[in-house]
Amino acid sequence: MRLAIIEGDGIGREVIPAAVEVLDAFGLELEKVPLELGYARWERTGTAMSGEDIKTIKGCDAVLFGAITTVPDPNYKSVLLTIRKELDLYANVRPVKPLPGIKGVTGKNNFDFIIVRENTEGLYSGIEEIGHDLSWTKRVVTRKGSERIAEYACKLAKQRNNKLTIVHKSNVLKSDKLFLDVCRQVASSHGVEYSDMLVDSMAYSLMMRPEKYDVIVTTNIFGDILSDMCAALVGSLGLVPSANIGRKYAFFEPVHGSAPDIAGKGISNPLAAILCVKMLLEWMGNPGASVIDEAVADVLQNKIITPDLGGTSTTAEVGHAVAEYV
Amino acid sequence: MRLAIIEGDGIGREVIPAAVEVLDAFGLELEKVPLELGYARWERTGTAMSGEDIKTIKGCDAVLFGAITTVPDPNYKSVLLTIRKELDLYANVRPVKPLPGIKGVTGKNNFDFIIVRENTEGLYSGIEEIGHDLSWTKRVVTRKGSERIAEYACKLAKQRNNKLTIVHKSNVLKSDKLFLDVCRQVASSHGVEYSDMLVDSMAYSLMMRPEKYDVIVTTNIFGDILSDMCAALVGSLGLVPSANIGRKYAFFEPVHGSAPDIAGKGISNPLAAILCVKMLLEWMGNPGASVIDEAVADVLQNKIITPDLGGTSTTAEVGHAVAEYV
Ligand SMILES: CC(C)[C@H](C(=O)O)[C@@H](O)C(=O)O
Ligand SMILES: CC(C)[C@H](C(=O)O)[C@@H](O)C(=O)O
Repeated sequence: MRLAIIEGDGIGREVIPAAVEVLDAFGLELEKVPLELGYARWERTGTAMSGEDIKTIKGCDAVLFGAITTVPDPNYKSVLLTIRKELDLYANVRPVKPLPGIKGVTGKNNFDFIIVRENTEGLYSGIEEIGHDLSWTKRVVTRKGSERIAEYACKLAKQRNNKLTIVHKSNVLKSDKLFLDVCRQVASSHGVEYSDMLVDSMAYSLMMRPEKYDVIVTTNIFGDILSDMCAALVGSLGLVPSANIGRKYAFFEPVHGSAPDIAGKGISNPLAAILCVKMLLEWMGNPGASVIDEAVADVLQNKIITPDLGGTSTTAEVGHAVAEYV
Repeated sequence: MRLAIIEGDGIGREVIPAAVEVLDAFGLELEKVPLELGYARWERTGTAMSGEDIKTIKGCDAVLFGAITTVPDPNYKSVLLTIRKELDLYANVRPVKPLPGIKGVTGKNNFDFIIVRENTEGLYSGIEEIGHDLSWTKRVVTRKGSERIAEYACKLAKQRNNKLTIVHKSNVLKSDKLFLDVCRQVASSHGVEYSDMLVDSMAYSLMMRPEKYDVIVTTNIFGDILSDMCAALVGSLGLVPSANIGRKYAFFEPVHGSAPDIAGKGISNPLAAILCVKMLLEWMGNPGASVIDEAVADVLQNKIITPDLGGTSTTAEVGHAVAEYV
């Protein structure tokens, strides 16, 4: 097993080392392949990522990724989108679950669901044209793309409460009829209990009754919007991990950005990155993954927390404490 | 002034009469043109709305609309979308403001903003194709379409706190660069203070810090999603009004649906429909519009409220009480 480690920019360089310390505590045999990508690299060399880097990444099994500052160049293609495409990471997975003792914006803590977002097509097709008076982007839904994401979501549902919610906008978008039909078929064939919701109603319902949901499957940009919104239920974008999963590769990334305003002070919160390690271990089939949940609960209870959560610990101190527990 | 009155189906037939009673209390000279459209009409006659109806509507200045149950016919074209298109109602306007004494999902009541959604293009272009293996929809952004919605939003901002937030996804969608650029230009030319947000970050930020926003302008489906989500801040989809405004016509509609489950019992909440009357009066330039806010505050304080808000009053009783106050 080879793991590419991409710290990226800003607080990526703080939270990833903390997460790696936690990973190391598991004493697994894995080769770590550090790669420098992103804004700082672009400033130094003029490229944020090269074809060579992609090859190196493809020579690994998985990637642990921090955050990259956006490069202010109109021709710049997002490192993240490029990696997703190159590794065909078709499932973007975001667990939404309260952390012990942390209050989300609604004060509720009775929810535990996962958003599975199709990660390769929809409005991210890249098929578009810019004109002076008119620009367009093609939103593409394929049967194959819908099938594989539905399969992924259904497998996940079977490991959980066997409940799938299909989120779409087929009252307006004919392209979503295909998505909806395929998801229904796949869920039926797996014996997964399913229902469907319009994306606008779902945005409302997730805020009002998040406890109703188990696994949610949706198209690319709807998943993008809903999953950021749901970070408010948890309490902060800084606390949620994500995985981008393909047939062959997997990529793990905290949802927060590079946060240049607090970078370099050693006070960034490493919990999202640490929860990415949990997702990595789950993906590897490691039965010890859930120890990370316990460890995180433990540091939260003992108030070994960074300033964003009202504590005084450093990034490294939180990392040590979680690693210690593990 | 001629006002088309479309009750529609389900609770539309309860809340609109209550709202009309409030409107009548203003003693304005206006001709009311009742029209039966929707599901019940479709069941009876096989059409939900005819070309003749559109002509009648075009002979009016504005429409007060209840709710229509979706017709289960694959060839059925939404009455709402047809009217929006026929009357070229390019601005979908949703004020998001707490009601006195009603707690939203976050418990906060320090926000007061308006979402202005482009209502004619984007993913609602209608340019699409369904195939067995691939379906697509074209997301269209035009300079003209962006200009007129930006103008609308800026005029609104100038009547308020002069602050505009442009919501887009131009880090992925090139079509949104056009939207963003045009909105910036229009805001500059009006001297409106502006900033922009990515739609995913905005979904999060609206839940975390709704008090930061004044006027928000965005493309069609982003506005659809964000505005339903924001009803959770107010406390219920059943409490928020909306307006669809064009150069010539305007259309007012509570955001809730026809709610067949509670229809016919006379217990549906008419406040959203009544707040639509307020928006209608504002559109007409009637300086008394804000009396409706006072009246609504008064019935809420005196607990003349329907069961959804924990009260025992009927739809008609709430309508009477508000009309009485006016
Ligand atoms: C940075 C951006 C391209 C990306 C996306 O839109 O997918 C991000 O918002 C995410 O959710 O990972
Ligand atoms: C009913 C549907 C076509 C409509 C839309 O998507 O615009 C609704 O959700 C709205 O927001 O008015």
